[in-house]
Amino acid sequence: MNTRIVLTKRPAGWVDESCFAVEDCAEPVCGPGDVLLESIYLSTDPYLRGRMNAGPSYAPGFEIGRAIVSRVVARVIGSNNSRFQPGEIVWGFLDWALRSVAPRGEGLHKIDPSLGRISHSLSVLGMPGLTAWVGAIEIGKPAPGDTAYISSAAGAVGQLAGQFAKRAGARVVGSAGSDDKVAFLLEHCGFDAAFNYKTLAIDRGLREHCPQGIDLYFDNVGGATLEAALRHANVAARFPVCGMISAYNEVGDAGIKGLQALLTKRIAMTGFIIYDHVHKLAAYQARVAPWLRSGELVFHEDIVPGIERAPAALIGMMKGEAIGKRLVQVGAE
Amino acid sequence: MNTRIVLTKRPAGWVDESCFAVEDCAEPVCGPGDVLLESIYLSTDPYLRGRMNAGPSYAPGFEIGRAIVSRVVARVIGSNNSRFQPGEIVWGFLDWALRSVAPRGEGLHKIDPSLGRISHSLSVLGMPGLTAWVGAIEIGKPAPGDTAYISSAAGAVGQLAGQFAKRAGARVVGSAGSDDKVAFLLEHCGFDAAFNYKTLAIDRGLREHCPQGIDLYFDNVGGATLEAALRHANVAARFPVCGMISAYNEVGDAGIKGLQALLTKRIAMTGFIIYDHVHKLAAYQARVAPWLRSGELVFHEDIVPGIERAPAALIGMMKGEAIGKRLVQVGAE
Repeated sequence: MNTRIVLTKRPAGWVDESCFAVEDCAEPVCGPGDVLLESIYLSTDPYLRGRMNAGPSYAPGFEIGRAIVSRVVARVIGSNNSRFQPGEIVWGFLDWALRSVAPRGEGLHKIDPSLGRISHSLSVLGMPGLTAWVGAIEIGKPAPGDTAYISSAAGAVGQLAGQFAKRAGARVVGSAGSDDKVAFLLEHCGFDAAFNYKTLAIDRGLREHCPQGIDLYFDNVGGATLEAALRHANVAARFPVCGMISAYNEVGDAGIKGLQALLTKRIAMTGFIIYDHVHKLAAYQARVAPWLRSGELVFHEDIVPGIERAPAALIGMMKGEAIGKRLVQVGAE
Repeated sequence: MNTRIVLTKRPAGWVDESCFAVEDCAEPVCGPGDVLLESIYLSTDPYLRGRMNAGPSYAPGFEIGRAIVSRVVARVIGSNNSRFQPGEIVWGFLDWALRSVAPRGEGLHKIDPSLGRISHSLSVLGMPGLTAWVGAIEIGKPAPGDTAYISSAAGAVGQLAGQFAKRAGARVVGSAGSDDKVAFLLEHCGFDAAFNYKTLAIDRGLREHCPQGIDLYFDNVGGATLEAALRHANVAARFPVCGMISAYNEVGDAGIKGLQALLTKRIAMTGFIIYDHVHKLAAYQARVAPWLRSGELVFHEDIVPGIERAPAALIGMMKGEAIGKRLVQVGAE
């Protein structure tokens, strides 16, 4: 039998495991032109929370009783499509299931194993990496001498955003939610400073670690962190807004105070979604893969084994328990 | 005797006339290198409210017991400076007084009367005009087919922002606080639609008048209007943030809700202050003066006579009673 993860109800506020079921299901049928796949890695991403809601977002919502879908790395195990051969490794938006079918092979992208680990196509060589690049470099425009502050700095995007800004000459400061994450940023990712926002209030952390103010704030969280960054921003600061995870699980919306700083400090606050930039992926991969191979760029994946642990892995990621990109491994490489 | 307007105390919340005094004062002394001036027009501007506070803003605060200072058009009536001759018309940051001195003539700019009325150097050919241009065109980047929404549309900046966006091909919608202002926008300024936000809620006004959503929101007010514009924004909308007058007179800060739209709709929200763009003034004047002369561009000034009425004129402007740029005329042209 096949196994899949379905959404059983829409969460109100924080999502918990009662919103999911691990269930046996039929083996997928590989029709004419279709490609049969065995899943290897499931990507857990903050944006999936928005898709669990009924309201409109930038991605269509999940349906109750249907499988969760995200980017998945998979092996072709059967193919009625001349473009795909058994044994090839691909990624696509696929069901959270052990096996699935890509109708007519649509939406599948072959992974070049020479670029790096196949899981990297969901992390440093995939959308999280490109997200960090577009936000930190293209929108954030770091210059030598700038101070760049990254929230959720030990996350999949944050650790790269910081390293990219650092390569561009900025002094890089991160905040994260545990001492282990702070140690990871300082010892492995080359951040100039980092602090645990659970033990040092954001305002104090920024006063202490960004004494020259903030020129670039890579916003992964919104909420009170964004408010603090507005207070500590310098004139002409750039705020790429990549995520507002602090709000994703909130029922209400407290509002962001202090937005007058946009005006008094001429801040450019720019939301972006990586879907608008996917055409840049190949160029990004070609630029970054050598840095990964040489060890100039560090990237950490947090791999949870077992499809039955996927709901807990996703929830835990949203609660901040992972360092780096969290993947669920559901099949052998 | 000379007469001046001084700040007598710092306002808490809405400013009222008790914060000002009209007082007799000594005639200014024109020392070596100085220029003696007779004021003609005083500029009333929303940013002056911020300067009445004690806290830091982008302009230094006014001191209690000292004259209010803003841009003033004045005539040279005495000069110990070879660069200025009696009879010349200039503008500069000067005291709100009938007569004042510019030490060593610093900060005075000669007005070219061939460009337009001398009062225009405080309005359509001055900072309000350049503000409208930078926000609506340089930051707002209107394209044919876009919908541009302007709040405080009948104000000094708003009426021009709308006309500039319209020239660039956008459909232009304005909101203002009276039926007279709405009529002014529709009948004189060429707006495609306009509504009175005091009789039609912003949300309903935007639904009715921006059925295709908003691509450019020229924000003069912040607050609930900004929140509504976020709700009605299209993907990739540009929000030049020029003012947040709704908050200037508030003691608290309710926060802006719905800022997640920055992310879901990839909105670029960019605060700007015209001080950063003053080097563009001459090019702007050269571009716009012909449009004014030909009547292609319309501009309304609301001129209140009498220095003793300056406090009430400023307060009334902040409360929205003026159409277009409000000036206080304190001397003959």
